[in-house]
Amino acid sequence: MKHLVLAAAAASLALPVTAQEPVPNPSPGEIAAAAPASDWVAIAPSELLVMDLAPDATGKARRVVIQLMPAPFSQGWIGNIRKLAAAHWWDGTSINRVQDNYVVQWGDATEKKALPEGLMTVPESGYVTTSDAISEANAKHLDLVGGGESALAAALSAEAAAVKSENNAAQFSIDGTRTKAAPGGWHERDSYTSWVEIFNGWPVAAEQSGEGVWHYWPVHCYGAVGVGRNMSPDTGSGAELYTVIGEAPRHLDRNIALVGRVITGMEYLTSLPRGTGALGFYEDAAQRVPIRSIRMANELSQDDQPKFEILSTDSVTFHRYVEARANRRDPFFIKPAGGVGICNIPVPVRMAPK
Amino acid sequence: MKHLVLAAAAASLALPVTAQEPVPNPSPGEIAAAAPASDWVAIAPSELLVMDLAPDATGKARRVVIQLMPAPFSQGWIGNIRKLAAAHWWDGTSINRVQDNYVVQWGDATEKKALPEGLMTVPESGYVTTSDAISEANAKHLDLVGGGESALAAALSAEAAAVKSENNAAQFSIDGTRTKAAPGGWHERDSYTSWVEIFNGWPVAAEQSGEGVWHYWPVHCYGAVGVGRNMSPDTGSGAELYTVIGEAPRHLDRNIALVGRVITGMEYLTSLPRGTGALGFYEDAAQRVPIRSIRMANELSQDDQPKFEILSTDSVTFHRYVEARANRRDPFFIKPAGGVGICNIPVPVRMAPK
Repeated sequence: MKHLVLAAAAASLALPVTAQEPVPNPSPGEIAAAAPASDWVAIAPSELLVMDLAPDATGKARRVVIQLMPAPFSQGWIGNIRKLAAAHWWDGTSINRVQDNYVVQWGDATEKKALPEGLMTVPESGYVTTSDAISEANAKHLDLVGGGESALAAALSAEAAAVKSENNAAQFSIDGTRTKAAPGGWHERDSYTSWVEIFNGWPVAAEQSGEGVWHYWPVHCYGAVGVGRNMSPDTGSGAELYTVIGEAPRHLDRNIALVGRVITGMEYLTSLPRGTGALGFYEDAAQRVPIRSIRMANELSQDDQPKFEILSTDSVTFHRYVEARANRRDPFFIKPAGGVGICNIPVPVRMAPK
Repeated sequence: MKHLVLAAAAASLALPVTAQEPVPNPSPGEIAAAAPASDWVAIAPSELLVMDLAPDATGKARRVVIQLMPAPFSQGWIGNIRKLAAAHWWDGTSINRVQDNYVVQWGDATEKKALPEGLMTVPESGYVTTSDAISEANAKHLDLVGGGESALAAALSAEAAAVKSENNAAQFSIDGTRTKAAPGGWHERDSYTSWVEIFNGWPVAAEQSGEGVWHYWPVHCYGAVGVGRNMSPDTGSGAELYTVIGEAPRHLDRNIALVGRVITGMEYLTSLPRGTGALGFYEDAAQRVPIRSIRMANELSQDDQPKFEILSTDSVTFHRYVEARANRRDPFFIKPAGGVGICNIPVPVRMAPK
């Protein structure tokens, strides 16, 4: 008897490129893998930050690729990060902190390296953005899903009718109207705030101010990349970065800037030895992991550029994927949950087909 | 200038033993560290499973300690685990699977080792329990918090008045009445089900059936230990175990048995190289991590027995700790969240003072 223990794997970040045959009760990963080519969107090399660590003890290369957030989120810090990468500022710096179930952090361990000129000091107001700013940055996106009887809304309604199962209807549903109520996303009950959704490819939370203005902010999920800082009102320059390696530390939302997420190579960070100093800093400088270079992908030679695609979160495929994450019906499962946390919906990313 | 980046650490699982002086806006960790000795409860050695891995490449010992769940949760599997440990069944087995952001799994990689006699076959109904079963197993506990004007309820009400801040009152509050509504716990909005709480030291979820009966089940948080299984109706024997090393995979709740949680040594599991085979299994047998032995702690010599204490989740200190996790006011923070996910409330555990 083949031991199928825990065969119900989470959809991996890097999916196989070949589309698969439809199966009766597909897993979220199978749904994404079966998406038509038109649902996949190329990620521009100018949006990818490439971190090459020193090879591991066996000589194996370790490359981590980070996708930066789109406007209007965190653009002040992201501008700084582009300048730091262009100045090759991180070359020769290191990973200095690995705290279990929290973060891996990198930057200049000496805290003495001069920063390049022209970095912006971003105010704390930059931790959130407004629906007006989103509207400006994403006019096309809002047209697609915000207006009346769009094709997507209609497709989602049909989809909702098709996938709604009697068991779960009460707790969870795909609903064109609810989806249309927010710009472009998916939402559910959240332990931290009144609204969460996947917006334009990214998990975000939102809340309405007293004046009726909606404020949006990115959320700390596994693999999210943020900006280390000193005590308030400092907000960090972007030179000191970290990524989340445990349960989503959502208490950091709106307290610290998020700028992107790791889309490949996460295992080179998560498998590092935990630091034994306070907050997981390495006590011995020899434990630090050298960073060979950090570059924007478009600065690399054509052959060396990583090529990735993201599953459009405006596609019907993506909505089916989310619904399946909330209601697992693939063969391993006996009880679909009827809901899903915003940080348990990794947006599918794959290497671009050659 | 000292670089305080991300000084806002999560409370670690192993807190310093010395109680600290009160500080104005204590962090959750500071609140737990300042608890009176009477709030700490010894964990019986008969409830601890001790896994000794082979030493690491530098010769360092690697001990992982798992606290087993109390009745009435998962007792069929836990009985099997006690028998497997008594038979020294795991000695010479190995860690065979490390899947990033999901699980580390151990057991017999050959899948051929005979199990000891007398293991129970637990039915799928064992994934949940009822309030009646809880009442029976925890009569004393229910008396403490369920009945009218108990001392704890009164203390919680006073505490609620003291800590309620204007900012957060709307979204989150400590409320003796709400706490009393469930047997002994804390609860908040949850993305997966209608009720979650910390019950008798453990994060659990609950739902009311059509007949008005409450069903309870343990939830998959970081560090939770569960029982690998084949396809339904198999529920696993307990010989194949895993622990969660990423974002809480709550879709596994009620689909697979949980039996405990790692309380120390988690870093020896989370820092292992990720497996490159399907589902993160190691492709090369040489990559497997040998397990020297797994024993119940009370089977070890007195000198070798790990001694731990847990912060009573019925204490006012614990309720203050949860409130502070939901509303971080320690100096690093500028915006308290106003809520907290059930898996972002690690129950404080410490080594017993000598």
